[in-house]
Amino acid sequence: MNITLAQAKAVIDAAKTKSEALNVKMDICVVDAGANIVAFERMDGAWIGSVDIAIKKAKTSAWFITDTAELTPLVKPDAPMFNIEHSNGGLITFPGGVLIKNNEGTVLGAIGVSGSVVENDHAVAVAGAKAVL
Amino acid sequence: MNITLAQAKAVIDAAKTKSEALNVKMDICVVDAGANIVAFERMDGAWIGSVDIAIKKAKTSAWFITDTAELTPLVKPDAPMFNIEHSNGGLITFPGGVLIKNNEGTVLGAIGVSGSVVENDHAVAVAGAKAVL
Amino acid sequence: MNITLAQAKAVIDAAKTKSEALNVKMDICVVDAGANIVAFERMDGAWIGSVDIAIKKAKTSAWFITDTAELTPLVKPDAPMFNIEHSNGGLITFPGGVLIKNNEGTVLGAIGVSGSVVENDHAVAVAGAKAVL
Amino acid sequence: MNITLAQAKAVIDAAKTKSEALNVKMDICVVDAGANIVAFERMDGAWIGSVDIAIKKAKTSAWFITDTAELTPLVKPDAPMFNIEHSNGGLITFPGGVLIKNNEGTVLGAIGVSGSVVENDHAVAVAGAKAVL
Repeated sequence: MNITLAQAKAVIDAAKTKSEALNVKMDICVVDAGANIVAFERMDGAWIGSVDIAIKKAKTSAWFITDTAELTPLVKPDAPMFNIEHSNGGLITFPGGVLIKNNEGTVLGAIGVSGSVVENDHAVAVAGAKAVL
Repeated sequence: MNITLAQAKAVIDAAKTKSEALNVKMDICVVDAGANIVAFERMDGAWIGSVDIAIKKAKTSAWFITDTAELTPLVKPDAPMFNIEHSNGGLITFPGGVLIKNNEGTVLGAIGVSGSVVENDHAVAVAGAKAVL
Repeated sequence: MNITLAQAKAVIDAAKTKSEALNVKMDICVVDAGANIVAFERMDGAWIGSVDIAIKKAKTSAWFITDTAELTPLVKPDAPMFNIEHSNGGLITFPGGVLIKNNEGTVLGAIGVSGSVVENDHAVAVAGAKAVL
Repeated sequence: MNITLAQAKAVIDAAKTKSEALNVKMDICVVDAGANIVAFERMDGAWIGSVDIAIKKAKTSAWFITDTAELTPLVKPDAPMFNIEHSNGGLITFPGGVLIKNNEGTVLGAIGVSGSVVENDHAVAVAGAKAVL
């Protein structure tokens, strides 16, 4: 079961609403459960460098079926998966990638958000993911 | 002068309307004049392999300020730019990448479409690009 | 609004003047606001390995609309953007990438300098960026 | 023996003079005999996509100690080096990369030019290379 384009767009719209509430400009990517891009939007004025980061956060989340914030402590120099970022053509393991699940808990895909401090990136991703509940 | 997100979404909406009229499922990417992604949508059921092709068609169009259909005859084995596709991390030089211009002729960005035969890809891209005129 | 070639060359000339004052040999790159290379010079005897570093510093600065020195504390192992360097085909996040702005504060592009200790790299980049004020 | 920065800039200046005479806008790269970039300039309005092509033409010329125009017939589908472009992170094997030699015939480096039809690219590269004779 995969996210539809209509659901992905609802996720992005909810993420943008949250971004505007936080007064930040975000790059937002939604991938399906297979980590393939479904939809992407760059808000006017958002960092160009965050295009790739948003995509990689969403893919990292889908690839490992977890929020990237869960990975963050595991990739520190003394932690077990230090430098896992060298796999898969590049991971991003700090917050901002969040799984998208339906109300039965089935994973439909993931959202990746980049463009502000990681607390905002994560909050916007969470707000987006809730749109399909 | 670069395309806005609102313009990019209007381009994608017009491209999807044309896709539905042709009964095809497309991956559609819009980049700005600097070849950076602004928006992307994969229609439900469209080929996963066309995600990257749609992105590369849009970028190729923006990088060389031309429709990719114009490049097609120039890259054949006996033509002057044979194997130009090895540049820029990979080009796509068959039809489906089209410049997006405003009604004064200024290039705002480009659209890349992939998911059907190249005639359909090109027709959908042209229909999308017209949305900002 | 993007930097012109004439401006980019003035930036590089100013950077070289500063390099000579510091008795260092630098690789110097200028990109436009879209992170695309406009001009590059390697001073005689400067490290070959710094060619790519200078380019990546300039691009990193433009991609995230910041001096790379601002990123340095944010990418340490315990900091929020640890290993962001795995994005965009490789970032350089230590000092030496500096935004180029006109006297109204508009970002025109960025300069990246590599070839000495990071304090010198940064000082040379700052001296270069001032040339368009 | 390698090209100096002063020589590389003279090569680029001569290439730009020829470009203006032909009324074309070029990306121009000079590498040393080791195929490492010495200097690069993108004329205002030249294709962004030609940045990488100009660099790859110069490197291809230096890597194989030949003008890229000499390689062109050798890489056709029925020729012995078909698809050699897959090596070295990507070659460009059509005209526009030209060796830079001093007046004793010693190879100092190479120039790569991209931005117009290949006849112009080659003519501009030849005009540039002559600057060090």
